[in-house]
Amino acid sequence: MNSTPPGKVYLVGAGPGAADLLTLRAARILQNADALFYDALVHPEVIALAARAHKVAVGKRCASHSTAQLFINKRLIDAARRHATVVRLKGGDPMLFGRAQEEIDALHRAGIEVAVIPGITAALAASAALKVSLTRRGMSRNVAFVTPRVGDTEKATDWIASAAAADTAVVYMGSREAAALARDLIARGVAPDTPVAIVENISLADERQHLGRLRELESLSSRLGSGPATIVLGQVLREKAAAARSEPCAKEGAIRKAC
Amino acid sequence: MNSTPPGKVYLVGAGPGAADLLTLRAARILQNADALFYDALVHPEVIALAARAHKVAVGKRCASHSTAQLFINKRLIDAARRHATVVRLKGGDPMLFGRAQEEIDALHRAGIEVAVIPGITAALAASAALKVSLTRRGMSRNVAFVTPRVGDTEKATDWIASAAAADTAVVYMGSREAAALARDLIARGVAPDTPVAIVENISLADERQHLGRLRELESLSSRLGSGPATIVLGQVLREKAAAARSEPCAKEGAIRKAC
Repeated sequence: MNSTPPGKVYLVGAGPGAADLLTLRAARILQNADALFYDALVHPEVIALAARAHKVAVGKRCASHSTAQLFINKRLIDAARRHATVVRLKGGDPMLFGRAQEEIDALHRAGIEVAVIPGITAALAASAALKVSLTRRGMSRNVAFVTPRVGDTEKATDWIASAAAADTAVVYMGSREAAALARDLIARGVAPDTPVAIVENISLADERQHLGRLRELESLSSRLGSGPATIVLGQVLREKAAAARSEPCAKEGAIRKAC
Repeated sequence: MNSTPPGKVYLVGAGPGAADLLTLRAARILQNADALFYDALVHPEVIALAARAHKVAVGKRCASHSTAQLFINKRLIDAARRHATVVRLKGGDPMLFGRAQEEIDALHRAGIEVAVIPGITAALAASAALKVSLTRRGMSRNVAFVTPRVGDTEKATDWIASAAAADTAVVYMGSREAAALARDLIARGVAPDTPVAIVENISLADERQHLGRLRELESLSSRLGSGPATIVLGQVLREKAAAARSEPCAKEGAIRKAC
């Protein structure tokens, strides 16, 4: 048996992309990390902050999700038994649309201390990039964050109803299912001309904003590259979408209108 | 006429409380600020980062909200005509439940450039503090952020429906209306035994977590002090709330159970 007291695991949010959208606390913990386990979408500059850490990429692209998750849990436990400061770095915020709870529960069952350091989530970074507030007096008093993506053990819950009931909705990981998403929302009573924005590669040099209406969502999403994209939907975007429609189509590199 | 080109206004999120939950970008901009306009709830350590800025508190406690907002808009415009870097610092994230859009629109109308720097919002900081993910495979695929607080020009929108439709709901600025909140949610079909948490003074030394069930919300909120408090509601809290119930009542300073 190893008599050294186990280390501590920090679940850290890396933010939406740009390395300087990390929190000061997250940066300090990364600098002190002995071992770092990071997701596929984290910016290399953020990973580089963990200068003295043993670094392990734990993207889940190759294996089944459940198997991969059990393997990550085991590796985190093993690392915490050998190192004082173990960092599990996730894109955005660790507590939204990830499998943080499975990791926290596995670590707690193994008697290992866990701390969670929040990160800037894509919805808020998209709002900042668009310069459109997600809530607005007289127009939007609430916002729903939803995803159509399901894991292999997912129970169906009515996320479309949640998006349709909200004044503003933000859809994570939905751009590849844009046609079905628009169809389902319209079937649930959301107006086809509801303004939408898709922001891809948020906060990075190749960020792009695509503005239009819900009925155009499939067409807007067809212009996306392979980077992550976040969809925002609601009347808060009305003026921004109208301004985009009046801009010349040829204005490359700026906001692209649906034309 | 002043021939100097106008300055730029940065709407910056100060995060939930603790000074080190600010982003690296926000810290850098604060250090460069010539003028700083800050809200009542921002931590003094964050304000102190703006070492060379002229600092103005713009809490809205004394005047009517609309009048005060027009006055803030005017002061931001005036400052941007005199300084290169003007910071408007808001608690949490600037684009949720604040009046950011009114400030952005006023600045744009005056021809002044605006940038928005996102911040850690209370919902995500509460989730991190509770170590409970807001979404969870097989249990919660969406989350709604709502507030019962209305401004003096507010149109009624059905925020209760949005909270009731979501798998997880986070209520901002709702703890003083806890009785009405619980009654309205139960009337809308939310189960009275739905687990809830109230986190007050999130991320600060005097943070407190109060766990229980929706039907106990008024009683839980009666234990709160005068600091800001955030309510989280949903099955994701089930195990945390059950664990709190089995803890001894006398364990002061730790999680308080509903006993």
